[in-house]
Amino acid sequence: MADKVLIYSRFPKTMMARFAERFELLDTGGKPAREVFSADEVGGIRAMLTAGGSPLGAEAMDLFPKLGAIVCYGTGYDGVDLKAAAARNIAVGHSPGANAASVADIAMTLMLATTRRILVADQYVRSGDWAGSKQSPMMRPQAGMPGRRIGVYGMGEIGRKIAARCAAFESEVGYFSRSKYDLPYQYFPTLEALADWCSVLMIAVRAGAETQHVVNAGILKRLGADGYVVNISRGSVIDEKALVAALSDKTIAGAGLDVFEKEPHAPDALTALPNVVFAPHIGGHTLESHVAMQNCVLANLGAFFAGQGLPYAVKTA
Amino acid sequence: MADKVLIYSRFPKTMMARFAERFELLDTGGKPAREVFSADEVGGIRAMLTAGGSPLGAEAMDLFPKLGAIVCYGTGYDGVDLKAAAARNIAVGHSPGANAASVADIAMTLMLATTRRILVADQYVRSGDWAGSKQSPMMRPQAGMPGRRIGVYGMGEIGRKIAARCAAFESEVGYFSRSKYDLPYQYFPTLEALADWCSVLMIAVRAGAETQHVVNAGILKRLGADGYVVNISRGSVIDEKALVAALSDKTIAGAGLDVFEKEPHAPDALTALPNVVFAPHIGGHTLESHVAMQNCVLANLGAFFAGQGLPYAVKTA
Repeated sequence: MADKVLIYSRFPKTMMARFAERFELLDTGGKPAREVFSADEVGGIRAMLTAGGSPLGAEAMDLFPKLGAIVCYGTGYDGVDLKAAAARNIAVGHSPGANAASVADIAMTLMLATTRRILVADQYVRSGDWAGSKQSPMMRPQAGMPGRRIGVYGMGEIGRKIAARCAAFESEVGYFSRSKYDLPYQYFPTLEALADWCSVLMIAVRAGAETQHVVNAGILKRLGADGYVVNISRGSVIDEKALVAALSDKTIAGAGLDVFEKEPHAPDALTALPNVVFAPHIGGHTLESHVAMQNCVLANLGAFFAGQGLPYAVKTA
Repeated sequence: MADKVLIYSRFPKTMMARFAERFELLDTGGKPAREVFSADEVGGIRAMLTAGGSPLGAEAMDLFPKLGAIVCYGTGYDGVDLKAAAARNIAVGHSPGANAASVADIAMTLMLATTRRILVADQYVRSGDWAGSKQSPMMRPQAGMPGRRIGVYGMGEIGRKIAARCAAFESEVGYFSRSKYDLPYQYFPTLEALADWCSVLMIAVRAGAETQHVVNAGILKRLGADGYVVNISRGSVIDEKALVAALSDKTIAGAGLDVFEKEPHAPDALTALPNVVFAPHIGGHTLESHVAMQNCVLANLGAFFAGQGLPYAVKTA
């Protein structure tokens, strides 16, 4: 009989297909497990698959008395209460680095699309305004990449890939993270100093309680009127209200956002703005990164049911 | 008295400001010079500034009996009949490389925006479809950059910068150009072979009579159903009708276009397509590249009026 895995978050069925070949999946479709499955079934659950951003605290864990493994699909695990899991002897796994290139690439896509005003450009051609030689203030020449100062906040796998890509664009790269690394980029000891220096802030930090609203009105003001912010980490890192204000009153020039405070909702005040490029949290959403993330999930679940430690366990400091 | 320079093409006044400080500009606004200026003024013209893509043949040159220098704003000079100019002892100058990074960057922007479906993504968030969990077939996972085969057609300054940027995205890079260079990219001896190999064709070739419609239905078919074409060179290099057909019947997956056959017009059949990202020929359109191109123009005009050869002369083979 196949080992059972509870699907805790809502995932498209196509993403679950490979898991269904090896495990019996109990798919909640994102609903409370007790609504969908019998008490017996829920009581027997030993492993679950979740989206790292889905809240999963002590109370939720206690609904599954035999739970031994929480496996996150993707890199993030900010929704999981790691202390509560450790206290219950529940292993937590994720897919470190599996989607790093894909996420770094969406960061680059959003930066380039925003700074080169590609939405406005596309509309200018499609509408016939170009053919009609209509003036478009949004199409004025903008600063380009060579010599541009790009500040990367967070120097994990995604941050490093963003930095390497920006360097190829002949930009200057600086970064702030808790640790200084042996990397060919300028290190800034505070986020404030980085924001003062750079004109594009790329948020690639691992999100958590300590990064909540760290990019606030003060940081945005330091970026300045020709400044941009790009967020591919988690929506919680930016104070979204302060961002709407800064974009509306031209405190900064624009933003590229793949993540939001309350997904899948983006505030109307934000989505009405012309100087932002939006994506619906598709950073890790490429064919190869899904395969790589699924490989990590399969390895974690396989090891767990074989009584071994998770090969891609979340490292708790 | 300041030397006089005829402004032959239509340019925004802001782009001419630095030239007006040193020369007396006779601005045609793109109209025939005889309509705007007296026969005396036209007869005395020794130097003109033109957009390299504007048609400028023998007949047009003969309207200016004293013409000694044609200076193109930008890298291109495909509109200028070089043989006719040489026969009349008219020097032709341009701005080689001044906008190479800016053009390479728009190529990257268009490639990323097209392959990651950023227009659809932005609209999916703005429309509320994401919040409403509506299905969007266009938002299915796509192939990403790592391991992707990018074919660069043309290995001049722009092609090299495109190749270097793509390599930083962990893509495989191949190229076709008349010559094989000592570069760390796979060389293909024909455009056909490159199109068979790659999934994204980046057109960075210097346009001319011999490149007219070289990217035709056959080449597009070789790219295949997961293939993309990005053009930042000149519209004439692609058979635009064949491109519309290939995009409409899914022979290829998408396109990113900064240039068109008859600018500023883009055919309605093209602009109606969802799987294309358009830009209104803004490749060289950054603040730094304008400054760099203007530096070349000023150097060319200054040298000409000082009786010297053009420092940035078009190299005729």
